[in-house]
Amino acid sequence: MPVTPDQQAEIDASRATTQPTLRATAPGMEKHLYTAHEVLDHGLIRVIDYMGDDSAITQAARVSYGKGTKAVTNDEGLIRYLMRHWHSTPFEMCEIKLHVKLPVFVARQWIRHRTANVNEYSARYSILDREFYIPAPENLNAQSVINNQGRGEVLEGEEAQRVLDILRDDSTRAYDNYESMMSDEGQQGLARELARMNLPANIYTQWYWKVDLHNLFHFLRLRADPHAQYEIRVYADAICEIVKDWVPYAYKAFEDYRLGGTQLSGPGLEVLRRMLKGEKVDQESSGMSAREWRELMGVIEG
Amino acid sequence: MPVTPDQQAEIDASRATTQPTLRATAPGMEKHLYTAHEVLDHGLIRVIDYMGDDSAITQAARVSYGKGTKAVTNDEGLIRYLMRHWHSTPFEMCEIKLHVKLPVFVARQWIRHRTANVNEYSARYSILDREFYIPAPENLNAQSVINNQGRGEVLEGEEAQRVLDILRDDSTRAYDNYESMMSDEGQQGLARELARMNLPANIYTQWYWKVDLHNLFHFLRLRADPHAQYEIRVYADAICEIVKDWVPYAYKAFEDYRLGGTQLSGPGLEVLRRMLKGEKVDQESSGMSAREWRELMGVIEG
Amino acid sequence: MPVTPDQQAEIDASRATTQPTLRATAPGMEKHLYTAHEVLDHGLIRVIDYMGDDSAITQAARVSYGKGTKAVTNDEGLIRYLMRHWHSTPFEMCEIKLHVKLPVFVARQWIRHRTANVNEYSARYSILDREFYIPAPENLNAQSVINNQGRGEVLEGEEAQRVLDILRDDSTRAYDNYESMMSDEGQQGLARELARMNLPANIYTQWYWKVDLHNLFHFLRLRADPHAQYEIRVYADAICEIVKDWVPYAYKAFEDYRLGGTQLSGPGLEVLRRMLKGEKVDQESSGMSAREWRELMGVIEG
Amino acid sequence: MPVTPDQQAEIDASRATTQPTLRATAPGMEKHLYTAHEVLDHGLIRVIDYMGDDSAITQAARVSYGKGTKAVTNDEGLIRYLMRHWHSTPFEMCEIKLHVKLPVFVARQWIRHRTANVNEYSARYSILDREFYIPAPENLNAQSVINNQGRGEVLEGEEAQRVLDILRDDSTRAYDNYESMMSDEGQQGLARELARMNLPANIYTQWYWKVDLHNLFHFLRLRADPHAQYEIRVYADAICEIVKDWVPYAYKAFEDYRLGGTQLSGPGLEVLRRMLKGEKVDQESSGMSAREWRELMGVIEG
Repeated sequence: MPVTPDQQAEIDASRATTQPTLRATAPGMEKHLYTAHEVLDHGLIRVIDYMGDDSAITQAARVSYGKGTKAVTNDEGLIRYLMRHWHSTPFEMCEIKLHVKLPVFVARQWIRHRTANVNEYSARYSILDREFYIPAPENLNAQSVINNQGRGEVLEGEEAQRVLDILRDDSTRAYDNYESMMSDEGQQGLARELARMNLPANIYTQWYWKVDLHNLFHFLRLRADPHAQYEIRVYADAICEIVKDWVPYAYKAFEDYRLGGTQLSGPGLEVLRRMLKGEKVDQESSGMSAREWRELMGVIEG
Repeated sequence: MPVTPDQQAEIDASRATTQPTLRATAPGMEKHLYTAHEVLDHGLIRVIDYMGDDSAITQAARVSYGKGTKAVTNDEGLIRYLMRHWHSTPFEMCEIKLHVKLPVFVARQWIRHRTANVNEYSARYSILDREFYIPAPENLNAQSVINNQGRGEVLEGEEAQRVLDILRDDSTRAYDNYESMMSDEGQQGLARELARMNLPANIYTQWYWKVDLHNLFHFLRLRADPHAQYEIRVYADAICEIVKDWVPYAYKAFEDYRLGGTQLSGPGLEVLRRMLKGEKVDQESSGMSAREWRELMGVIEG
Repeated sequence: MPVTPDQQAEIDASRATTQPTLRATAPGMEKHLYTAHEVLDHGLIRVIDYMGDDSAITQAARVSYGKGTKAVTNDEGLIRYLMRHWHSTPFEMCEIKLHVKLPVFVARQWIRHRTANVNEYSARYSILDREFYIPAPENLNAQSVINNQGRGEVLEGEEAQRVLDILRDDSTRAYDNYESMMSDEGQQGLARELARMNLPANIYTQWYWKVDLHNLFHFLRLRADPHAQYEIRVYADAICEIVKDWVPYAYKAFEDYRLGGTQLSGPGLEVLRRMLKGEKVDQESSGMSAREWRELMGVIEG
Repeated sequence: MPVTPDQQAEIDASRATTQPTLRATAPGMEKHLYTAHEVLDHGLIRVIDYMGDDSAITQAARVSYGKGTKAVTNDEGLIRYLMRHWHSTPFEMCEIKLHVKLPVFVARQWIRHRTANVNEYSARYSILDREFYIPAPENLNAQSVINNQGRGEVLEGEEAQRVLDILRDDSTRAYDNYESMMSDEGQQGLARELARMNLPANIYTQWYWKVDLHNLFHFLRLRADPHAQYEIRVYADAICEIVKDWVPYAYKAFEDYRLGGTQLSGPGLEVLRRMLKGEKVDQESSGMSAREWRELMGVIEG
């Protein structure tokens, strides 16, 4: 349960009344506002605010005086053209602000995306809650044997149980000790900025994260990718669902040209052209390394 | 007249109907939305969209679940504290999108502020309008004799007239030739991406400019400063008036701590402390250079 | 002639003596240092400084204590892997600083790349030189009839001559008037920050531009592209030649995976797979729009 | 001991031979290159590379063709002027690349400075070393009773011992379990990307961090400040010593105008002016809040 009854009451209050505005609104997005979408065992994503809609993209691309739409079909065609040709600035004219609750080790990956605004809950100033990510059994995987940076089979039986016990016990002990070091009953009480160093990376933190649509798409392309770590991918997937409701044309273009697309190298393109002419090409005659060849075959075979 | 009747009709249509939204709205800002604020002889600033209000700043600072306000006085105090102590991330949680029409030489200064999103009207793709900035006589100044980078006295009499004639004539001729080179009547017609090179820097361009409140304050501190060039300062001043209506607490804190404040050097602070103890200090006994001393005296005397 | 004898003497002096350093040096880059590579009629590119080499990329990727090389072949393989999989941070560990002299209309495109450091010659503070870009006759093209944002055929005969005359005459007059407005002989003399507004966009400006290798590659991918305007492409091409000598492995990977590569959409990839299986696909059966289909055929046919 | 004998050997090899270069070199910086400066109990800072020196700042400010120095005194005066008047772009023309080993909770603060390039050791790909930050007894402080975000008195006696025991024991157990979960002896072995979540925030990580001088000064102003947490301040202090040897004029200007200086608010400045005229001002007659008044008195009294 990522949200307490008090928090839910605050959310409900926020959703209770609308205000009139002259700004562009996206009906599909209004329904998401403030609502907590659950992710992992205690995590969440909430839309706090947004700026713009599909029309705002074309309006900016045209630097227009009015709302920018001529015909809906024009909007979609222009958005697809802009995406296909890497015209990124019109997509930067939409912005989203999210409230995210996530494990620290996920937050550390997430923050690598620098072109965003972040305001994180401060463990220097406040005391963190006792909430830790413990993977569901089906997400407890062995180290991959073919990829240094990935997972293999799901752990089984006793081993899985041992891992879950360790994660739970170590989290519990770390948090008990965190509290007891800070306690001022019968002692001075350790500074919060020091006590926090005892907490493991599966503890949950929270932040407000604000980003423009172009940079969000870049984040989603990398993090909704099958090679991304599962624990960040589920956040990316949840955001994809939200963006789809917010800017449906832009999201569809993103899906066609980025998420579902692929980058072909010059030599890879050459191989394809030869194949399409009916030539039989193998790794040796391609001039590519074994690894590059394997990756190209993966793309062709889908 | 920066806006044509057609453009005004588009603006009026945009302002005609409101939509309900759950987002934070700033009533003082709604009245500015889309309206063209005139700047210089043909320039303008229009608010296209905004995200957040004063409460959004404190809500982010507290990473809260609800709208973030407890008491209004708390909000103001917290905002002043954040500004005073350079906590910039909560201010980044507000965003504004402007439509700006401005002379190219002003645009070239403006774009030096890199942390913003820009979509400019493309003279590669489209034909620019025949609109040039010609200074009003009271803004036609001689080169400063004490500051390489500034203006001195207002030009007088015939000299002023000569300058105005030159600016008008050269603009007119440049634009006539721009049009005639591109014309496809009886000739091929030069490419727009080439023809534009004949246009002088006082021609007007337009862009959509989107920036967060923290970076906007940085822009305003530098560009609403008396040392900024007049032609960009009037844009900064117009934006100040808008921001004051949008986030009144944040703007007041900005005014007190940034715009109206000053940076004292370590040696300058030392001089002040000696003076406050009743000591008589002059440049020599201060250990400061003549220029630094003069600047310090300027600050003290106001 | 982009460089005066005095400037050449300064360049020669800078190249006269070496200093010993412990830093990574790239022999192929040392030969470029300070030397003016001519671009367009008065433009130039000079390498002022650089940081890192191919090994610096792999050293950072491995966060290593030593110089990072094990075997040269490892370095190349790792660099290609990093490029192929969009691991951009190791490429950011190399940096280059260039002195560029370029027409203002080119500078205005260039500056759109925000992730770089720029220090431009100030026409507010100093007087610009009388140097204007006048295209060579073979680069004087008509507007494209199929692409709003491009050039078509080379202009011919009298029309070409007329354009060249206009560009020369208007530049000359604009500069004469720029000088005469600022002159303090027998008059006050207009402020430089105002006088500059009379100068057309083909005047040359100069700046120091510093950028990391990842962002430079992004710049080069867009600006060395056949769709980029000729006048910026020649700068990008000149930089490509320099980067090739600086970080040969990284440049080769960039050439294979970015410059010479292509992005395939999800639907485009589907079409290719069907074709490779021997199926006959046309636009209608592809489900793609006419424009997207045409672009895909362009990629396949090369 | 932050460095193993093998690592020291790699460092020594890197420092063994110099190469000739035409680039600007800073003799004071060459002596730091690669050398490990110890910070905290297992941390370090090493200079991996640098670009530019004091002259490079003025050379860029002048966009000059030669090395940019006329007289040394000119360089220093210009640098101080640029710093005093917030001309930041010339300082961006110097760049530094550091290898830093630091506890994760320090890394999480550090990464908030977004305008830098970072390549971190990946715990998804590799196994972290068994190295944890355990504070020295004199840096083990109680929570401040006046500042939510700070430390008070040093912990004493048994309490201090209890805290140290907890930090040591929990780190040891967490690491033992980290290893045992990943072990593939008699079991599948948990994926590294999952096992790392059991590690506490006092474990050491490492990264290459590259930043320009302007943004480095911004980092140092915030992190070498007395209000910064001790564990990041010691890194900032160590970097200050290095920068002082690299660009002595720029560092002195930074010290005088930023580190040792202060920001006065408009109302604060008004109070000062009244005091200097001999007027007696107290909080009430100042119109400032109690907190702002206390902070102003702190500045005045030093």
